[in-house]
Amino acid sequence: MTQEKTLSHVNQHGEANMVDVTDKSVTQRVAYAQGNVLMSPKTLSLINNQQHAKGDVFAVARIAGIQGAKKCSDLIPLCHPLMLTKVQIDFATLEDESGIRISAMCKLAGQTGVEMEALTAVSVAALTLFDMCKAVDPSMTINGIQVVEKLGGKTGHWQRKEAQAS
Amino acid sequence: MTQEKTLSHVNQHGEANMVDVTDKSVTQRVAYAQGNVLMSPKTLSLINNQQHAKGDVFAVARIAGIQGAKKCSDLIPLCHPLMLTKVQIDFATLEDESGIRISAMCKLAGQTGVEMEALTAVSVAALTLFDMCKAVDPSMTINGIQVVEKLGGKTGHWQRKEAQAS
Amino acid sequence: MTQEKTLSHVNQHGEANMVDVTDKSVTQRVAYAQGNVLMSPKTLSLINNQQHAKGDVFAVARIAGIQGAKKCSDLIPLCHPLMLTKVQIDFATLEDESGIRISAMCKLAGQTGVEMEALTAVSVAALTLFDMCKAVDPSMTINGIQVVEKLGGKTGHWQRKEAQAS
Amino acid sequence: MTQEKTLSHVNQHGEANMVDVTDKSVTQRVAYAQGNVLMSPKTLSLINNQQHAKGDVFAVARIAGIQGAKKCSDLIPLCHPLMLTKVQIDFATLEDESGIRISAMCKLAGQTGVEMEALTAVSVAALTLFDMCKAVDPSMTINGIQVVEKLGGKTGHWQRKEAQAS
Amino acid sequence: MTQEKTLSHVNQHGEANMVDVTDKSVTQRVAYAQGNVLMSPKTLSLINNQQHAKGDVFAVARIAGIQGAKKCSDLIPLCHPLMLTKVQIDFATLEDESGIRISAMCKLAGQTGVEMEALTAVSVAALTLFDMCKAVDPSMTINGIQVVEKLGGKTGHWQRKEAQAS
Amino acid sequence: MTQEKTLSHVNQHGEANMVDVTDKSVTQRVAYAQGNVLMSPKTLSLINNQQHAKGDVFAVARIAGIQGAKKCSDLIPLCHPLMLTKVQIDFATLEDESGIRISAMCKLAGQTGVEMEALTAVSVAALTLFDMCKAVDPSMTINGIQVVEKLGGKTGHWQRKEAQAS
Repeated sequence: MTQEKTLSHVNQHGEANMVDVTDKSVTQRVAYAQGNVLMSPKTLSLINNQQHAKGDVFAVARIAGIQGAKKCSDLIPLCHPLMLTKVQIDFATLEDESGIRISAMCKLAGQTGVEMEALTAVSVAALTLFDMCKAVDPSMTINGIQVVEKLGGKTGHWQRKEAQAS
Repeated sequence: MTQEKTLSHVNQHGEANMVDVTDKSVTQRVAYAQGNVLMSPKTLSLINNQQHAKGDVFAVARIAGIQGAKKCSDLIPLCHPLMLTKVQIDFATLEDESGIRISAMCKLAGQTGVEMEALTAVSVAALTLFDMCKAVDPSMTINGIQVVEKLGGKTGHWQRKEAQAS
Repeated sequence: MTQEKTLSHVNQHGEANMVDVTDKSVTQRVAYAQGNVLMSPKTLSLINNQQHAKGDVFAVARIAGIQGAKKCSDLIPLCHPLMLTKVQIDFATLEDESGIRISAMCKLAGQTGVEMEALTAVSVAALTLFDMCKAVDPSMTINGIQVVEKLGGKTGHWQRKEAQAS
Repeated sequence: MTQEKTLSHVNQHGEANMVDVTDKSVTQRVAYAQGNVLMSPKTLSLINNQQHAKGDVFAVARIAGIQGAKKCSDLIPLCHPLMLTKVQIDFATLEDESGIRISAMCKLAGQTGVEMEALTAVSVAALTLFDMCKAVDPSMTINGIQVVEKLGGKTGHWQRKEAQAS
Repeated sequence: MTQEKTLSHVNQHGEANMVDVTDKSVTQRVAYAQGNVLMSPKTLSLINNQQHAKGDVFAVARIAGIQGAKKCSDLIPLCHPLMLTKVQIDFATLEDESGIRISAMCKLAGQTGVEMEALTAVSVAALTLFDMCKAVDPSMTINGIQVVEKLGGKTGHWQRKEAQAS
Repeated sequence: MTQEKTLSHVNQHGEANMVDVTDKSVTQRVAYAQGNVLMSPKTLSLINNQQHAKGDVFAVARIAGIQGAKKCSDLIPLCHPLMLTKVQIDFATLEDESGIRISAMCKLAGQTGVEMEALTAVSVAALTLFDMCKAVDPSMTINGIQVVEKLGGKTGHWQRKEAQAS
């Protein structure tokens, strides 16, 4: 309980603190994250038609997301460098809103979790979708970036409560 | 109108297409973007108290966001390399929800707009806040990443409609 | 003539020498480069069928090549950092051999030529094709990477002699 | 046999697919690759004389190749990040043609092979040689980049058939 | 003794040589390094007052140092890529001179020592302090960058002789 | 005078502040920096003998320094991305102490000075020398990193007072 009240990335003097994972055991870790890019129905239709023809919009965003996951520790100052063994990015049309759902899964056998890598993959894929459509629709919004589920490590299995409903 | 129906980053064969900006004139360009990190009131209070003491949480996220803006063309495949002349990141407590508003401004004299740089700055700052608080609050959500306003270039002044209200 | 006998990137003491381009005038520069990935007919057919369905093999290699062009000065020690305004990568099936021809075009208004950027784009796209097919065909060969044509700068228009025939 | 007909880096929907190596065992892996830079006899003589004096041309290309090997997963989208334990680059004058043979060896104890790292080392060293000689000889060609031999992993020892003769 | 007379990073032909660590055992390794930024008393007072208020000068330099440690193998050609498990940076006011002492500690379980990572962390933090104060005091000097202590690996515990006195 | 009392890289709230150079005029700028690596006479003799034979130690450090200068804005958070037009690194044996003097010159036509690039070039070259000799002499010290002279920009010509004497 007291433990819950401490920001692990800031030490007792309020200084940035990279968590020491030297003595944590190596276990298989998986994290799932997701996020949405909301856009006008016209833009959505352009992307989806594009996809039926050649699929390059999603292909570019997928590659950007995978590359982004690998750059996570270069982007986020207190993240540890990791050797990801798998990154997967999927796209789906949202049902309730006009937009695209981006899902990412990251995996490795290591000493620390990979949720930041999964979130970075989603964010970079979302920014890339935005970039490719911004001339048509500059009012898009990136929404709902969150961790959905994680497995492995000391905390074991964690699942976002509203994950089923979202 | 017809022009509006084309994705500029995909050519007529559906292939990824880096827009040719060689002949665009060099003008001063500014872009403003924003995004929110929603969190539990307890987490928000931890960050804000932290901030009153030493401020390192926001300091780390600010630096990460500035560095992220500079990495934009490395992260987003079809972005052009740019020489930003100014990046600014600000943080504020949200009034209606429990969370932090991140605002970014990017500026340069160049041949292409800097909204992707501002969006990247917001995204990386948001991911860094998430990283620093995730041990306490793994259910945070990054929301509402969008361009608020841009100036310069052929399109001139553009402002998001709901920007005043948000 | 005597000038032709000097390696510009090594000074008179045999030391690595970054050419000083401070006083060179800014002109529009374009460079075209190409290269081939030779592979078994079976592999070629796999890629081409893939391409007809969804095109991801070429899409990944195209993105990798564009990103590679932007990283040129990070990869090649004596290259100057540049702000490319356009990178384009195309793929075609070779007619005389079993393989893929990769063509790249790079463009900018700057003080130095962009042939190294175009060659880097071709090389990274070729390595990516290799990576994606190596489980099927580890004996592929990357061949014929060369500059085809360049325009702009003090030397003006240069065209490879055998370029028409190749 | 059926297995041979699948591109491992594209899934059944034609989408880019990073191979999951989480469960592959850690074994010592070595890969050898090579490539040639063909040039005019005059250019070759300039490099070789240079080398006798101070050797900087090869020294720069060697460093570039080693650094390139370390950047492999940043350049090639579906490559896994790896921790190379050894990279070696050698140069030799070709006997049958006017040019330089570049050989690279990469090594690590890991879950995936290092042939892409060795090929990247050769490619970046070749591009660097090209860059250093291009003012003298813009018609050079980079040829014959291929894997020569690899050891370790499930496939064990693999050797290119014509490797002995080349 | 004879062994002491060889530069391990240059082979018998005088060529750059990345040490092969494939067969070295994985042990826990720690390295401590330090360095000083000497400045005018007025500049020191500006930084320290700043620090009492909000601390951003040290916060920025700390983040830069941590990120620098992670980039070590990208900066120093013959360094191996490593997965640091902990980087810590501390700042203190020098007692005998007008300036700031920067101390860094790096840690991992791996096959090679981390003193270069610790030295890089100190150097980048020092350069960042310099950058932030250079408008006020362009005559600052970065001094005394050295390894203080290292543990782990074949050489075991090593401590700089004058470390106690400095 | 009052102006001298402000840290330009921290704003009035103590937050990290990237200086806005959008409206600064483009002028030719040059900066010279230097630093020393102090080592035992035995180590110095190893490097110098090495240098007479093949020179790879200095060649590697020179390349690392040039590449380091190009990475300056990636390493130092509040530095602007720049397009250097020339980087030069020189080495000399110190006369009064046992060690190597590293000198760097950086140049560009731009909106901001290049002293941080020159200091980064010196620092990375020094770290590389250290890395290559550390197995022989782990007690080396990097000393006296400072700006020697800068030209261009609003401040015009600035020269370090003791520069002549050092």
